[in-house]
Amino acid sequence: MYFCSMIEDKNQKKTSLEELGEFGLIEHLTKSFESKQESTLKAIGDDAAVLDLKDKKTILSTDLLIEGVHFDLSYMPLKHLGYKAIMVNLSDIYAMNAIPTQITVSVAVSNRFPLEALEELYAGIELATKTYNVDLVGGDTTSSKTGLLISVTAVGVANEADITYRNGAKPNDLLVVTGDIGGAYMGLQVLEREKEVYKVNPNSQPDLEPYSYIIERQLKPEARKDIVELLEKLEVKPTSMIDISDGLSSEVLHLCKQSQVGCDLYEDKIPLDPTVISSCEEFGIDSTLVALSGGEDYELLFTVDQEDFDKIKGNPNLTVIGHMTDKSLGANMVTRSGSKIGLTAQGWNSFGA
Amino acid sequence: MYFCSMIEDKNQKKTSLEELGEFGLIEHLTKSFESKQESTLKAIGDDAAVLDLKDKKTILSTDLLIEGVHFDLSYMPLKHLGYKAIMVNLSDIYAMNAIPTQITVSVAVSNRFPLEALEELYAGIELATKTYNVDLVGGDTTSSKTGLLISVTAVGVANEADITYRNGAKPNDLLVVTGDIGGAYMGLQVLEREKEVYKVNPNSQPDLEPYSYIIERQLKPEARKDIVELLEKLEVKPTSMIDISDGLSSEVLHLCKQSQVGCDLYEDKIPLDPTVISSCEEFGIDSTLVALSGGEDYELLFTVDQEDFDKIKGNPNLTVIGHMTDKSLGANMVTRSGSKIGLTAQGWNSFGA
Repeated sequence: MYFCSMIEDKNQKKTSLEELGEFGLIEHLTKSFESKQESTLKAIGDDAAVLDLKDKKTILSTDLLIEGVHFDLSYMPLKHLGYKAIMVNLSDIYAMNAIPTQITVSVAVSNRFPLEALEELYAGIELATKTYNVDLVGGDTTSSKTGLLISVTAVGVANEADITYRNGAKPNDLLVVTGDIGGAYMGLQVLEREKEVYKVNPNSQPDLEPYSYIIERQLKPEARKDIVELLEKLEVKPTSMIDISDGLSSEVLHLCKQSQVGCDLYEDKIPLDPTVISSCEEFGIDSTLVALSGGEDYELLFTVDQEDFDKIKGNPNLTVIGHMTDKSLGANMVTRSGSKIGLTAQGWNSFGA
Repeated sequence: MYFCSMIEDKNQKKTSLEELGEFGLIEHLTKSFESKQESTLKAIGDDAAVLDLKDKKTILSTDLLIEGVHFDLSYMPLKHLGYKAIMVNLSDIYAMNAIPTQITVSVAVSNRFPLEALEELYAGIELATKTYNVDLVGGDTTSSKTGLLISVTAVGVANEADITYRNGAKPNDLLVVTGDIGGAYMGLQVLEREKEVYKVNPNSQPDLEPYSYIIERQLKPEARKDIVELLEKLEVKPTSMIDISDGLSSEVLHLCKQSQVGCDLYEDKIPLDPTVISSCEEFGIDSTLVALSGGEDYELLFTVDQEDFDKIKGNPNLTVIGHMTDKSLGANMVTRSGSKIGLTAQGWNSFGA
């Protein structure tokens, strides 16, 4: 199922992009999109979109996804890719404790992509806009010399008092993570392994069922809309917040640096799904290392005042994994054996070897 | 002078991007940027930017520029490229009769680019932000498999009553173009020709002085901020407006289609710089064809009610080139010989051969 894009369907209809041309293409791809936000005054079709965000503050985030760097089409179905590209951006808006309202999407493709491939991509984008109630209001399609790239900008709104930056954590604040982490990274390991198997034997039918949770975490992550809604319901305003795109360690260090605090993170508190633990054992990788530096989970990491502990305790979506300390104490992990080790940024470095 | 990037400077300092890493890189490149807009509450450094656009409407535009498709680094200096990437987007905001306030810039580069190349690019971006009084509030840098690409999103503000869409033109409205057109296209022709000469003889020192106006139109276009200010001063609100990125013909057709009107455009009224006329003669190209389908001039094309004619007549920045008609009459050009020919979209089609 996940390897559908590896298997060339000989009967698949292929329409070349030249047939449509640039103007026809964006019109064709976006004709079924409907704007639902009252704040969208003008979506696609003019020089720019027009939004009426009223007295709210405007939240703006942008991301670039590039074939061969951020995704591999040999196991990433295009519909999932379209969906994920939107999630990556919405996650940044939620990490500000804000609500996304509009997106723009620009796509560059080489001529090796038929129209039907772009239709798949936009089907995923459309599903994301419907599920997350955001309007597509701009963007374009253009040609690229090689491969596919997607640039997404997300706009959101928030009341000024609700906006949560990275710099508000205080010593003794609790460090909280949503959901579980490490799954997206381990899903990628499984997909990479199966890709190698497929290269050797294209007729192999891998049983990916045992890995379905972690593969889904990699291919179809969900931005944590529900957490922003939950925090509002619980009447908890985090003192700082960030989304986990580059790995827990890297994000903790961002909060510490910008808030000018230290941190004690407890290894045994890090929430891991059983599939992550079992696949780590299978691959011979340390599960803590995966959680700290895996990335792409798109969970939220935030700090709350100790006084808010009663409001969040026992919630299955939230796990307290540590607390903030004085800056002079540094950012540390307390291991299962009770020793303290300094955290280092092992987040994904896209210029690395 | 314009061919500086063709001439390899052996003494140039080159710092590889790996040395800095992703996080260090964006910090390094943007450290000298200063936010000046009161509406910028938070620029680069968090999950998203925060803007306070108050009771104004938000205008949003985005564009993607790709090496080998939209620009050629063999004659486009990186500083100019950075500047132009911003102009392309600001032009879209001005075409809504709005004022740009913030931009985000994402850049993907392959490792063949040293840090110093990116510094040049960002120097151009910074110059553009200073000249046009916009704040850089977001974006990132990432690696690409091949070449350079730049994704820019611009945010602007406008009072609702001032916003000018493409769809408000009425029959008998005057069709007005700013500045002169065709220059950017002819500048490109000169640069392409000199590139071929350079390939054969790298020591040739071309005399580009006679072409400096059109080369500058191609390499360093300016978005028409002054026109939006002029229109306000003249108390003229265009009934429709668009910027000229794909050529006059294509833009006229957009206005006609979206406003449900026809148009008579007079060939002899199209404003052409003498350098455009002389270079067209030299290259044996019809200057009207260049104006109609050249593109990249980033001038504004708009329609005004006949009653506003007295306010705009004689202004050296504005040329009345025709008038709108009933939809049933179609979009036509009245040639110098007095015959009418139908306009066809000959705007640049990026998927073309």
